[in-house]
Amino acid sequence: MTHNQLFELIRKKRSFLCVGLDTDINKIPEHLKTTDDPVFEFNKAIVDATHERSVAYKPNLAFYESLGARGWESLAKTMNYIQQKTNDIFLIADAKRGDIGNTSSLYARTFFETFNFDAVTLSPYMGLDTVSPFLAHEGKWSIILALTSNKSAGDFQYLTDKITGKKLYETVLEKISHWGTTDQIMYVVGATKAEALQGIRKIVPNHFLLVPGVGAQGGSLAEVAKYGMNSRCGLLVNSSRGIIYASGGEDFAEQAQKKAVVLQQEMQQLLENNNLL
Amino acid sequence: MTHNQLFELIRKKRSFLCVGLDTDINKIPEHLKTTDDPVFEFNKAIVDATHERSVAYKPNLAFYESLGARGWESLAKTMNYIQQKTNDIFLIADAKRGDIGNTSSLYARTFFETFNFDAVTLSPYMGLDTVSPFLAHEGKWSIILALTSNKSAGDFQYLTDKITGKKLYETVLEKISHWGTTDQIMYVVGATKAEALQGIRKIVPNHFLLVPGVGAQGGSLAEVAKYGMNSRCGLLVNSSRGIIYASGGEDFAEQAQKKAVVLQQEMQQLLENNNLL
Repeated sequence: MTHNQLFELIRKKRSFLCVGLDTDINKIPEHLKTTDDPVFEFNKAIVDATHERSVAYKPNLAFYESLGARGWESLAKTMNYIQQKTNDIFLIADAKRGDIGNTSSLYARTFFETFNFDAVTLSPYMGLDTVSPFLAHEGKWSIILALTSNKSAGDFQYLTDKITGKKLYETVLEKISHWGTTDQIMYVVGATKAEALQGIRKIVPNHFLLVPGVGAQGGSLAEVAKYGMNSRCGLLVNSSRGIIYASGGEDFAEQAQKKAVVLQQEMQQLLENNNLL
Repeated sequence: MTHNQLFELIRKKRSFLCVGLDTDINKIPEHLKTTDDPVFEFNKAIVDATHERSVAYKPNLAFYESLGARGWESLAKTMNYIQQKTNDIFLIADAKRGDIGNTSSLYARTFFETFNFDAVTLSPYMGLDTVSPFLAHEGKWSIILALTSNKSAGDFQYLTDKITGKKLYETVLEKISHWGTTDQIMYVVGATKAEALQGIRKIVPNHFLLVPGVGAQGGSLAEVAKYGMNSRCGLLVNSSRGIIYASGGEDFAEQAQKKAVVLQQEMQQLLENNNLL
């Protein structure tokens, strides 16, 4: 999917919502736990309930890996299910990988070929040769951690470079913007850091940003749009726990849908306010 | 395993060799490919051939993930096999993870509980709260990327902080040394960066360092020991491709053993030269 195709998808669905499939076996409603594959059954119901309101899904690999081989099967089934259900969706492997070249090539093969994800999240710490094997896959995206949503993000991301006067996350944004095009590179910027978005847009005016932290982590959608939205929207805003665990009971999918509808409607309003619809 | 126990293991085996199980399905000798689980059969033979000469094994998760659920089964079988064969071994999940707290907790559970690894490699980019869930597991280690062995390591790791005058990797070393003890924290320092080891030892004189990059990547064992060895050895030197792919034929295990013996003997000499045996 190109940058333009992603924007068109956002216009079509009137939404820039990404639903995080952080499916924790311990939080799945009781009535699903007796099924053969509770994680898949949960995801299937969430996808059925939310796919019309969202443009992307983002399974967090940790949740699947914690179950060993069985978790990877649930992930594969989830991916197949989503792709059979709809073409109008952008699929992100939230893996936060980053390794030397020959290893990165394998990760790229895993996520882009074995699983057919559109994008994968990557850590920038090890530099260009850890990202370039992902960039070699045509039509696929690398989503680089820049300014993350967690409390300790500043431990290293705020360090200021002596020569350029830029913070580490600003250096990451700027340097990596030269490694590929806006059809290939996206950045993670936490919603809890909305005040930084103005400055970030000066460095990367045209790139898409994947913004986690709305909902459970406390970020504000309106603030994110105010400072981060550009002329092609330029935002995918993720909500995980706030949607998928809206209810712990048998009505979990129905409640998830309600939460997705609320976010989608707020997003539609924001897109309209910015004359993007 | 504590810092002292790891040192005693090194003395007992007269080796600080870590064998990287970067088992690539495409590089496995032909005669194993018809078995039920070629990756496991390959690892089993490598372990049989090298366990007396090495103190650690380090499966790189990328190689297993690239095979999906089947790869995770091969990894689980490999881990069980090693642990049944010997207690005298330190097991490292080379995963280079790093994510927000609730996700890191899951990764910690996966590697320390589901798989019973002693240690896991982590990326420092997201800061303390991404590392602390790993530190909460008693007797387990977090191995943090500091100065990596790849060509582009300097893209971000060499940035110099305006206030402290320290490079990013030096800041990582120093700051994270306060997050836990030398029984919990280890760092990755590439063998290809041996000249930096002197400076690194001024910042973290007592920590163990996991040193990849000897062999295929071109680092020198003698240089690493010269600048990096401390009074408790303080080094685990990894070789992956140089050992496990020493031969692509039916004699692969025998040739791997020969390479491991050469490295172990050089290590024994270095330990003796430093009066550690």
